[in-house]
Amino acid sequence: MSQLTHFDDSGASRMVDVGGKAETDRVARASAVVRMGGDTLNLIRDRKLSKGDVLEVARLAGIMAAKKTADLIPLCHSLPLTSVRVEFAFCEPDCLRIEATVTVFARTGVEMEALTAVSVAALTVYDMAKAVDRGMTIERIRLEEKTGGKSGHFVRNPVASRTSD
Amino acid sequence: MSQLTHFDDSGASRMVDVGGKAETDRVARASAVVRMGGDTLNLIRDRKLSKGDVLEVARLAGIMAAKKTADLIPLCHSLPLTSVRVEFAFCEPDCLRIEATVTVFARTGVEMEALTAVSVAALTVYDMAKAVDRGMTIERIRLEEKTGGKSGHFVRNPVASRTSD
Amino acid sequence: MSQLTHFDDSGASRMVDVGGKAETDRVARASAVVRMGGDTLNLIRDRKLSKGDVLEVARLAGIMAAKKTADLIPLCHSLPLTSVRVEFAFCEPDCLRIEATVTVFARTGVEMEALTAVSVAALTVYDMAKAVDRGMTIERIRLEEKTGGKSGHFVRNPVASRTSD
Amino acid sequence: MSQLTHFDDSGASRMVDVGGKAETDRVARASAVVRMGGDTLNLIRDRKLSKGDVLEVARLAGIMAAKKTADLIPLCHSLPLTSVRVEFAFCEPDCLRIEATVTVFARTGVEMEALTAVSVAALTVYDMAKAVDRGMTIERIRLEEKTGGKSGHFVRNPVASRTSD
Amino acid sequence: MSQLTHFDDSGASRMVDVGGKAETDRVARASAVVRMGGDTLNLIRDRKLSKGDVLEVARLAGIMAAKKTADLIPLCHSLPLTSVRVEFAFCEPDCLRIEATVTVFARTGVEMEALTAVSVAALTVYDMAKAVDRGMTIERIRLEEKTGGKSGHFVRNPVASRTSD
Amino acid sequence: MSQLTHFDDSGASRMVDVGGKAETDRVARASAVVRMGGDTLNLIRDRKLSKGDVLEVARLAGIMAAKKTADLIPLCHSLPLTSVRVEFAFCEPDCLRIEATVTVFARTGVEMEALTAVSVAALTVYDMAKAVDRGMTIERIRLEEKTGGKSGHFVRNPVASRTSD
Repeated sequence: MSQLTHFDDSGASRMVDVGGKAETDRVARASAVVRMGGDTLNLIRDRKLSKGDVLEVARLAGIMAAKKTADLIPLCHSLPLTSVRVEFAFCEPDCLRIEATVTVFARTGVEMEALTAVSVAALTVYDMAKAVDRGMTIERIRLEEKTGGKSGHFVRNPVASRTSD
Repeated sequence: MSQLTHFDDSGASRMVDVGGKAETDRVARASAVVRMGGDTLNLIRDRKLSKGDVLEVARLAGIMAAKKTADLIPLCHSLPLTSVRVEFAFCEPDCLRIEATVTVFARTGVEMEALTAVSVAALTVYDMAKAVDRGMTIERIRLEEKTGGKSGHFVRNPVASRTSD
Repeated sequence: MSQLTHFDDSGASRMVDVGGKAETDRVARASAVVRMGGDTLNLIRDRKLSKGDVLEVARLAGIMAAKKTADLIPLCHSLPLTSVRVEFAFCEPDCLRIEATVTVFARTGVEMEALTAVSVAALTVYDMAKAVDRGMTIERIRLEEKTGGKSGHFVRNPVASRTSD
Repeated sequence: MSQLTHFDDSGASRMVDVGGKAETDRVARASAVVRMGGDTLNLIRDRKLSKGDVLEVARLAGIMAAKKTADLIPLCHSLPLTSVRVEFAFCEPDCLRIEATVTVFARTGVEMEALTAVSVAALTVYDMAKAVDRGMTIERIRLEEKTGGKSGHFVRNPVASRTSD
Repeated sequence: MSQLTHFDDSGASRMVDVGGKAETDRVARASAVVRMGGDTLNLIRDRKLSKGDVLEVARLAGIMAAKKTADLIPLCHSLPLTSVRVEFAFCEPDCLRIEATVTVFARTGVEMEALTAVSVAALTVYDMAKAVDRGMTIERIRLEEKTGGKSGHFVRNPVASRTSD
Repeated sequence: MSQLTHFDDSGASRMVDVGGKAETDRVARASAVVRMGGDTLNLIRDRKLSKGDVLEVARLAGIMAAKKTADLIPLCHSLPLTSVRVEFAFCEPDCLRIEATVTVFARTGVEMEALTAVSVAALTVYDMAKAVDRGMTIERIRLEEKTGGKSGHFVRNPVASRTSD
């Protein structure tokens, strides 16, 4: 089994040296699910149609959080992201699926940026609806796909996945 | 059903006015679970015993993130937190439970701070172990307990909980 | 004429000592105007009605910027804001008026927070529409009203105002 | 008329993908005007000559703000700026002109960085002089020139300009 | 000997709970020394008299850094500082002394804010003069005095001091 | 003697234009010393062996601070660091030596990042041990080595060094 690369041989944490890696196009896609009461889901979905859009606030929070990933995750590299997208889909009757796609041309990948985007978007949904549903849970934050870089193409196998939807 | 308080009558988002609320002692406790391969769990647990401690890095990331909550969640108030704790427990064979407890003396509560702390701690565990296990998932981020303020004492009912461990 | 209080007698800049001032309720209201082409105004106004809302993005940017005021303005105090609101009105045929209202219970006022909110909201409108109208200008950022604190109630006199709409 | 590129076809906001654009040298120049009482102008100008320099504080605030643009404007890309300059000129008897020039070698331009620099510099002038002149206004924040990138050279036409000095 | 209070009994780091401590007026004063070549000192001192003031840039950097202390020092509490001052004195022929005084009305002290202010001011002096003198060193960053809070009045004993000027 | 490059001919501060410089591999190494009581040193060293590791907290603080250098030092460029390492050695009986090594592929060097990393790591050691030893001092923050860029290889001459260990 390979090493935990964020530690050196003495056990000291470090920001891993990516200076020798090639700059390539990299993409990462991650997702999260917010589980909520059916009434809450209706409230969020209906506000979207009329006025006061929970999802647009959450989307911006997710995009902005992707840009702050290196400030949040101690050993992450700062990367000049070329794009960030955050998308939502209701999985009725009681859940909201969030997916973020992040791209960069850099020496290291953007998994953490995509995962941070969906996490903060989900937290923002919680914040905006918590007055009506404190029991909401955020579930199954995971990497869906990753391309670029030496470790190659990663796609989560939906069948063998340890945690299903 | 009550309103989504972060929107006014015209549907505009806003930072809710808490100026009329009393300053009281408030506590919030939240948790998250990181699901991982058994080998990954062993690796993290054993490093803790020897050298290079994933959990201590994640703990600090969580504590620091709690202080940045108002910078991440668009409509959150900045609050002068009086304490933040982040704790870990292995739920073998394949999961790690993270719990954060945040306190404040303020006009509004700290649920979002506790939820942000566990989320960022979990993301940091993912970051540090992703080279050996890209399939890890973060599951079941939720509020466990909340005291102080007009909405009173909230404790998640472990029996009726929509999402079990 | 009174002194520039941000400098001491030797001319050194400083964060003014507000330790001796009383904590009181304080409110500040500021405004800005974005001048744009009529087509741009229509585009923004119509998107609001259908899909893709420039103003909601600008509103959130303004609210979040209010919370960052002490990080932007070198000698400002960090204050725990109790509320922030940002509102928009079209002043046809070619302008958009932005108004922000900020409240706090503190030893010093929130003029800079209100002014920062409208400025960043206006910059965000520019950013989102600049691909169609690089000639937009932001005009007349000003304090409208201020209450609380020893300096008393300030209301801009609309008649004697040095810069009219 | 072209689209508001920060929204996709469904109306969702996004950080636009610049991955396919070429890295080129880019320059942007923006300006703002602070209108103030003649006594205030004298005070600022004279302090500059003796001790306690409002403009140097404002200049640094503007330069530092340029570096925070992507943290303030929700859909802006983080860019590694190669230079930032902020300059001042008194336009007597009652105004101060601020101009910022920002350069970068990147896939997208730096208009927002230049506009943010002048805006925050102007807000800082307001902050430092507000104790003596609450009626100051910030006027006419605008892009003056922009080079580099596919959209070509933009220079504001001083004659046809919608908002004159 | 007392405990390292930032760790609990299990050795986990934490933000110490100050919720039970009284809000009182607190002051902390810290200092640092920048050792440099005599020519460098002359250059900095003379620029101050004519044009281009290294010390004013360093002063602002120190004041702004004091406000970011909780973002830099992992287990520090965020505190609403009531004042920050940074002062300089040349100790010829080859050193510059920096002193910062920070005040707050809070449940915990501001030693770290004062120490952070002098450290970042000193680093900024280094940055601005490094092109002419890479051999500069920052020496003897230390707490000079501290009042308020249960631990009482601390004044460094200049005679018994472990590190003299 | 060369100029203070952060000022232009009129004495205005500026972020120096590095647009014309070549991107090259650059390394900087800096160090600091924390002087403390022998009992404090034992306490820190022993906690490292058992539980509650001051140095690991300080290390992470140093690494994260390196990433914030451009936010702290007013005229520094934001740089996409490729690696950051922070190491500790006890110099018994009463001091701790901290060394940081930072690398980048960029148009300008990373001295300030290395110096910021050791400074903030040292401040964090102070914060964690201040309850037992307020008299600790941070001494001799200095650049040890620098490679890459037009100014060539800099190595501090240990013999002629103005400030010895």
